[in-house]
Amino acid sequence: MTICKSADQKLEQYIATKGEETSFHRVEAQKAKCSYGLQGVCCKLCSNGPCKITKASPRGVCGATADTIVARNFLRSVAAGSACYIHIIEKTAKNLITLGEQEKTLRGASKLHELAALLNLNISEKTTNHQIAVQVGQKILADLYKAREEKMELVAPLAHPQRYDKWQELNIVPGGAKAEVFDAIVKTSTNLNSDPIDMLLHALSLGISTGLYGLTLTNLVNDVIMGEPVIRQASVGFKVVDENYINIMITGHQHSMLADLQDRLTSPEALTQAQEVGAQGFKIIGSTCVGQDLQVRGEHCKEVFAGHTGNNFTSEPLITTGAIDLLLSEFNCTVPGLEPLVEKYKVKQICLDDVAKTANAIHNPFTMEKAATISEYIMEQAIKSYKERRSQITIDIPKDHGYDDVVTGLSEKSLRQFLGNSWQPLIELIAAGKIKGLAAVVGCSNVTNLGHDVFTVGLTEELIKNDILVLSAGCSSGGLENVGLMSPSAAAKAGANLREVCESLGIPPVLNFGPCLAIGRLEMIALELAEALNIDIPQLPLVLSAPQWLEEQALADGAFGLALGLPLHLASPPFITGSDTVTKVLTEDLKSLTGGYVIVEGNIESAGAKLNAIIEERRTALGL
Amino acid sequence: MTICKSADQKLEQYIATKGEETSFHRVEAQKAKCSYGLQGVCCKLCSNGPCKITKASPRGVCGATADTIVARNFLRSVAAGSACYIHIIEKTAKNLITLGEQEKTLRGASKLHELAALLNLNISEKTTNHQIAVQVGQKILADLYKAREEKMELVAPLAHPQRYDKWQELNIVPGGAKAEVFDAIVKTSTNLNSDPIDMLLHALSLGISTGLYGLTLTNLVNDVIMGEPVIRQASVGFKVVDENYINIMITGHQHSMLADLQDRLTSPEALTQAQEVGAQGFKIIGSTCVGQDLQVRGEHCKEVFAGHTGNNFTSEPLITTGAIDLLLSEFNCTVPGLEPLVEKYKVKQICLDDVAKTANAIHNPFTMEKAATISEYIMEQAIKSYKERRSQITIDIPKDHGYDDVVTGLSEKSLRQFLGNSWQPLIELIAAGKIKGLAAVVGCSNVTNLGHDVFTVGLTEELIKNDILVLSAGCSSGGLENVGLMSPSAAAKAGANLREVCESLGIPPVLNFGPCLAIGRLEMIALELAEALNIDIPQLPLVLSAPQWLEEQALADGAFGLALGLPLHLASPPFITGSDTVTKVLTEDLKSLTGGYVIVEGNIESAGAKLNAIIEERRTALGL
Repeated sequence: MTICKSADQKLEQYIATKGEETSFHRVEAQKAKCSYGLQGVCCKLCSNGPCKITKASPRGVCGATADTIVARNFLRSVAAGSACYIHIIEKTAKNLITLGEQEKTLRGASKLHELAALLNLNISEKTTNHQIAVQVGQKILADLYKAREEKMELVAPLAHPQRYDKWQELNIVPGGAKAEVFDAIVKTSTNLNSDPIDMLLHALSLGISTGLYGLTLTNLVNDVIMGEPVIRQASVGFKVVDENYINIMITGHQHSMLADLQDRLTSPEALTQAQEVGAQGFKIIGSTCVGQDLQVRGEHCKEVFAGHTGNNFTSEPLITTGAIDLLLSEFNCTVPGLEPLVEKYKVKQICLDDVAKTANAIHNPFTMEKAATISEYIMEQAIKSYKERRSQITIDIPKDHGYDDVVTGLSEKSLRQFLGNSWQPLIELIAAGKIKGLAAVVGCSNVTNLGHDVFTVGLTEELIKNDILVLSAGCSSGGLENVGLMSPSAAAKAGANLREVCESLGIPPVLNFGPCLAIGRLEMIALELAEALNIDIPQLPLVLSAPQWLEEQALADGAFGLALGLPLHLASPPFITGSDTVTKVLTEDLKSLTGGYVIVEGNIESAGAKLNAIIEERRTALGL
Repeated sequence: MTICKSADQKLEQYIATKGEETSFHRVEAQKAKCSYGLQGVCCKLCSNGPCKITKASPRGVCGATADTIVARNFLRSVAAGSACYIHIIEKTAKNLITLGEQEKTLRGASKLHELAALLNLNISEKTTNHQIAVQVGQKILADLYKAREEKMELVAPLAHPQRYDKWQELNIVPGGAKAEVFDAIVKTSTNLNSDPIDMLLHALSLGISTGLYGLTLTNLVNDVIMGEPVIRQASVGFKVVDENYINIMITGHQHSMLADLQDRLTSPEALTQAQEVGAQGFKIIGSTCVGQDLQVRGEHCKEVFAGHTGNNFTSEPLITTGAIDLLLSEFNCTVPGLEPLVEKYKVKQICLDDVAKTANAIHNPFTMEKAATISEYIMEQAIKSYKERRSQITIDIPKDHGYDDVVTGLSEKSLRQFLGNSWQPLIELIAAGKIKGLAAVVGCSNVTNLGHDVFTVGLTEELIKNDILVLSAGCSSGGLENVGLMSPSAAAKAGANLREVCESLGIPPVLNFGPCLAIGRLEMIALELAEALNIDIPQLPLVLSAPQWLEEQALADGAFGLALGLPLHLASPPFITGSDTVTKVLTEDLKSLTGGYVIVEGNIESAGAKLNAIIEERRTALGL
């Protein structure tokens, strides 16, 4: 069986050796792509269809043009992606409320006053941390549940003021985040909206609610629940897996669901129980974004968190190590390809949220109220699985996969603190040309843009070579850390100026912010830099690339980037090329509206050159 | 240019003569269908795709099987369809609240106490009608906006008790209707749920919320706002259009948005304004469901409502008559093919809700608070359009199209009243075999199942021939009335027993309940009949067919039928045949869960025979 390439050579080799079917194999079998689907001109909204737009049939049966069909498909994807992130912040806010009401431990309680101030909450001196937690959670929920005609109240305090004015001018300030999704779904249903411009503007509103609530607020609330990121070095890759432990692999994005479990797994009772079946204890094995998040917050879970193994497409090979006893999933990216592998490797699967239910998972819906019971159940099942499967399964962990010195724990706050509690040093380095500019290389990993992480890694290398400091969040960071670009020694791959900066500070040229949710942290950095410089975000020497975007969520993130006014590079287009209008609006016209625009470039060198040119342009405009 | 057939021969001939491109033409150009799309095994959820399931590639890149892909596509469609109906009831409830708060006219105020009792509201003797209106509206909104984990309170009072127990047993009683949609969208996004059974059960929950809120409650609230249906005869077809008036064509489903306009168009001032430009006044020309609804409530808008012209695919040819001056749209089915026609025929278009915005429509978002201003604007634009276009456009109305004696105004209440305020006469006719059973032939019209309304009309003729009384709601009724099956003379087409009943009562063998929303009225009849007989709904000699289902909304309606336990016939499958599991669950296994199941049968005679056999079986089981 042929497999696709990976930027992570050791992983590629491991997959090839194991011979178990993974996404790396199936991408070869799915190589014949439908050109209508790729262009976005296929419509299945009604029983007169499927219709496809061709030269001979320029309209669907209903009369929909390519513009309408493409815009509808695009908006529906952005809406679904937004729904995913809004689901995450909703559940996270509810968890915060329960923890507050029940006066439970908040690892980052000290952050609450900061958060309350950011959100303009009226907090008296007498208000306890737990009361603030409840208020913050309720304030967020109230916004999420507003009707679409009611504007959300936290947009203004969270947004850059000049951006907010721009959004008001364009009439894209979102109403209730859930209602924005809901109406986008209605809008894109059969024989409803057929106006591509209206639909693209709606996508921008969804971008704003996704970014400020789904991303930014999720990070901040998780900082309270799980503890704030602290910069540190960590091990990554399959080497973090130790077969002497009962290993619980985690996939998803709803980190706060693990708050209770983390503690319980390291309790003396847990240790005793593990030892009774011959294990040294329990370990949580990070995979996908929830793993990235625990890595970033590693300071607060040193004992139980083994480390992060890799991104979405690294999850299937992880099961084939045989060392995983239980797969605990609560959201995407839990790829369906895990199903036959967990069967074969006798891995029990527990799913904490029905939105991510797989056919063979036990569904145990999480609420913070019953967190303790769920944790006990997970432990019990993990022990049972360890006992049953270990004698039957061969363990094969590639211990040479990964790195031990990945710099992690970055956040908008920890980075600023690292710089002496001010952005001034970074601004000076940029002004001096030691750092030419910043590139946020974010989002997913896929297996189609030259292979697994191949484009992401290649582009990042191009950028750092040009003295552009790369900030990463999402599965992209999972790929970049597993090829060594987030270890300090990677400074050697940077251009002379950036290399000098990195070596003097002991940092890598690619900074690891963790999960895709942390794209919200990058936005906060952009906002703070713009405010420090008294300019608008689109004036910053900052570019955005989601080179190997994969999911609908990535499109919602992308819409946020466009609303922020950033140039957004993608290695392959989001199924829009069949519409001249949609393509032109997203790649050109939007520039005069928000300042943002999409750059589709599938060649690594060209993409690097284009992003470099934009940064140089911005520098010139700033007189640098 | 070739066009597809229509059951409505005069319409077909008119379209052929005019030569303007319509859906009837485009269906020919879109004949080459994608087999993967038809089977539902195409997935475009991520950038690794599009993937399609074939024998050589039985899983998508991510590992999704045909079962997962089909279930995801199906659930997303049902969710989008549900979203549409929930949007309608939400807006309708808001309109009711405003009318109550502002103490405006409620044409069916007398219904309020009935409705309050049905919903178990606590109403004191002192409560005014306007106060009840506000309470009813608020109660509905509160349910719609509940979180998914909170059950909606009006499900129990609206549901058949045995059905409710069944739904509880299956754990499919819906939480907040908007949240149910929202989570289904999350669930069907990239790398989330891959469990087909979980997704199909979710579709049933959506069916329940769609049916009881989107359909039933919308009817009941509109009864209050717009006046209750009264049985009467009406004219239908293009013959209702009179070129001497300023003609406002309406498309959509949000009838209450027309409450103010109806009155204002017949005011002395409006008449004067119309006369000043040479017209005799204003007329509203019914098209699609909003037209069906005004027809059913015709008693309350005799002067301004010209009549109903036809269903979704009759809307394009209606523009080509040249007699329409303004197209007022507020929801689907506003087919995109109208766009070039309104351009060519210089018809102004105003859209009252951005979810239905078309590229060339002026968007004037409706709220009941500014209803008067909007009505004035519409009148102004209609007058302007009349003045500008009439000298430039040739008018060509096929005055021989349609009927003058369509029996309309049917509702669960008007029919029971017609029967002497009791279902007993109907039950006795069924028991005596004079009426063998009931068939609800509902839903959309499409142009693919043998042609426009061809299957619907053919199946209906089969059913009535077998003494099965047909009840219709939706675009199906628009098709059936335009071929004469809803005129009393159609009794001649019925079997001897049914014919005798029809002739003695002076009714046609096909009863016209109006818009698709009135599927909720048919459910109320089923519920009341089952209660009168002290049996559960699936025991009734009642079958459901949405032969020419078109839209995502139809799939949500269908899910309601399945939750009610009804056999549901479709002439073509809802893109599910690529999954054995989904097909088996929907067509077989569900029978043992809810009692409902899907029957896919694309041959008219066979479909008629199958439905007839089910009714005979049910009669036998009841000892009839």
